[in-house]
Amino acid sequence: MAFKHITSRDNPVYKHLRKLADNARERKKEKVTLLEGVHLIEAYVQTQGEPQLLIIPEGKSSLEATDLLQQLADVDTMMLPTLMFADLAPVASSSGIMALVPVPELPLPQAVDFALLIEDIQDPGNLGSMLRTAAAAGVQVAYLTKGCTDAWSPKALRGGQGAQLILPVVENVEAEALVKNFPGKTLALAMQGESLYEQPLSEPVLFVVGNEGAGISPALQSAVKACVTIPMAHQGVLALESLNAAAATAIALFECQRQRLSA
Amino acid sequence: MAFKHITSRDNPVYKHLRKLADNARERKKEKVTLLEGVHLIEAYVQTQGEPQLLIIPEGKSSLEATDLLQQLADVDTMMLPTLMFADLAPVASSSGIMALVPVPELPLPQAVDFALLIEDIQDPGNLGSMLRTAAAAGVQVAYLTKGCTDAWSPKALRGGQGAQLILPVVENVEAEALVKNFPGKTLALAMQGESLYEQPLSEPVLFVVGNEGAGISPALQSAVKACVTIPMAHQGVLALESLNAAAATAIALFECQRQRLSA
Repeated sequence: MAFKHITSRDNPVYKHLRKLADNARERKKEKVTLLEGVHLIEAYVQTQGEPQLLIIPEGKSSLEATDLLQQLADVDTMMLPTLMFADLAPVASSSGIMALVPVPELPLPQAVDFALLIEDIQDPGNLGSMLRTAAAAGVQVAYLTKGCTDAWSPKALRGGQGAQLILPVVENVEAEALVKNFPGKTLALAMQGESLYEQPLSEPVLFVVGNEGAGISPALQSAVKACVTIPMAHQGVLALESLNAAAATAIALFECQRQRLSA
Repeated sequence: MAFKHITSRDNPVYKHLRKLADNARERKKEKVTLLEGVHLIEAYVQTQGEPQLLIIPEGKSSLEATDLLQQLADVDTMMLPTLMFADLAPVASSSGIMALVPVPELPLPQAVDFALLIEDIQDPGNLGSMLRTAAAAGVQVAYLTKGCTDAWSPKALRGGQGAQLILPVVENVEAEALVKNFPGKTLALAMQGESLYEQPLSEPVLFVVGNEGAGISPALQSAVKACVTIPMAHQGVLALESLNAAAATAIALFECQRQRLSA
């Protein structure tokens, strides 16, 4: 392995990493991304293999980061001044290690019987947390419209906590065609509709969730079999009762999981 | 009403507002807080009454903010340069209006049959979104340990989207005593335990949720009647499947709501 200590922001490798940290187009072109933190890097190693490059800040590393560096002793490592490292990291309190990795292409399931279509979610933390919930609920594939943020950005990966490494994610889908061709029930989560709890969910199902402000586009609402809603406690009394998109997604996906477990 | 245009950061009223924006102790002492955005201010007016002061940035206001200003024409209003306004706001993309308001004290329910105890959640956005979910699920009171962040900070209010105005929140509770004296079932959400779905939840219930990293403290785990867990799709196969605290809370509270609706 090679160890490099880089201290200039003009270093071409560092400039390249900065571009990858900030720019979805650059990541797509090169099919690589940056992972932050021991947990995500370990998950990558466990599911995909070794990173191309490890990046650490100057100064004392955490015990976990040191262990990981030892375990990956044959991977090239780059050390950076603290501030240069911080400029690559997706959050302020970075855990002190990052990795450059190829974006994996997970095989798609042959027959899909539990899927999620996400329309136009632009916040990477929100998108990541929806993918994390989907993986935990047993969703087999997540479809993302063109209006969604990059599922492989460092922030979305952080929100996903490794979900992107086990749940196949298909980006830039043609949402209407997908809904029309889905071999099973297609249900859009909406403010108004049939009660979620009255839907039998053991046959193949595709849930469609949208962006909290805008809701699901009219085109998709008319393409799905039904709009479903999560009944709230005092619906109508005050407009204050509502759920954020990630919470609503969690409730719907786990209702499906619950019905299937008890079937 | 009085209208003031303030342009100096040394203005004593502005300095006072800065303190209130940043400092939980100051807010507690004066029993006031800052609300950001048309939606939250409207919710306040609808449930509590008029704010003490409205704060707007220089320049053109949004249509919604202009409407609200007209509706609240007899409330004192302060106009600030854009950057000074931004320094008071909890998020970068502020909707262009804030309000100084007394923190309401909502009456506690006589008999509690659905409650939530939140232990040591430090992220204000997370805490806010848990309170929002709790209000939507029909929780009657939310108890917060001393280790939780201020439920009335501008960021927590934004995450709650008005939940704090309809759901009574009791801060600094003695968690163990509360659990021991609760007249009903006390259930801690944990990584390991009985399945959530096998719990009958129609009798009075108190859910206990903790911070994602640390989990629920051992003291609380032994005080509750049972630890319950949300079954995941491929539990044990990979350590990658997990839920964030807000998603787990949403699933548990709405499972309770579902059982009660279908009872």
